[in-house]
Amino acid sequence: MQKKPIALAEKLSKIHEHWSPKIIAQMNDYHFKLVKIQGEFIWHSHPETDEVFLVLQGRMVIHFREGEVELNSGELFVVPKGCEHKPSASEECQIMLIEPAGTVNTGDTGGKLTVENDAWV
Amino acid sequence: MQKKPIALAEKLSKIHEHWSPKIIAQMNDYHFKLVKIQGEFIWHSHPETDEVFLVLQGRMVIHFREGEVELNSGELFVVPKGCEHKPSASEECQIMLIEPAGTVNTGDTGGKLTVENDAWV
Repeated sequence: MQKKPIALAEKLSKIHEHWSPKIIAQMNDYHFKLVKIQGEFIWHSHPETDEVFLVLQGRMVIHFREGEVELNSGELFVVPKGCEHKPSASEECQIMLIEPAGTVNTGDTGGKLTVENDAWV
Repeated sequence: MQKKPIALAEKLSKIHEHWSPKIIAQMNDYHFKLVKIQGEFIWHSHPETDEVFLVLQGRMVIHFREGEVELNSGELFVVPKGCEHKPSASEECQIMLIEPAGTVNTGDTGGKLTVENDAWV
């Protein structure tokens, strides 16, 4: 068993792209991922799973078809399974995502913003 | 769908006991819990699941039979399924736990430190 803690700030310092989640830990069949975002992502949903956003630094907005949620540092939100959403951030925002291993960033929409879903940092 | 973010600091301000995790969110069949700890807990394990500790404020040590891990604010550790551990903190430490709904705080040890595992804050 590895006995070293996982330091979020250290892992974040190694992430240089936006919208490209990197895995930092696995719990059972779930992944903890860090991601830096800026700008607007695309509308998508994850038909098979809820998805947790925890803002570590900055501010983001999750748009829904029927409203939006603003998340600041230290705030968490659970996007329900199958619920269409579009993350955005006017300035760079640092986030932890928690979701099942294998979850694809663009969900059921796909397209050119899709990144590999098994990259660790 | 609730459109309000979950603010960790606000939830923590409502927790006044030590070693008594309170649920703040559910993702699929997993719970996100906040807990304040101080002093030494008991040796226990969770034979059925990994368990994630994320330190939000302060410093804690997770003792294992073959060593220990010190966790400071912004650091995360995954205790493997079935691995005996004993959390401790010399001063009050604020933590987020992520684990399957129904996980018992004292695991397979039980005893008087066992608290209800379905209390929300």
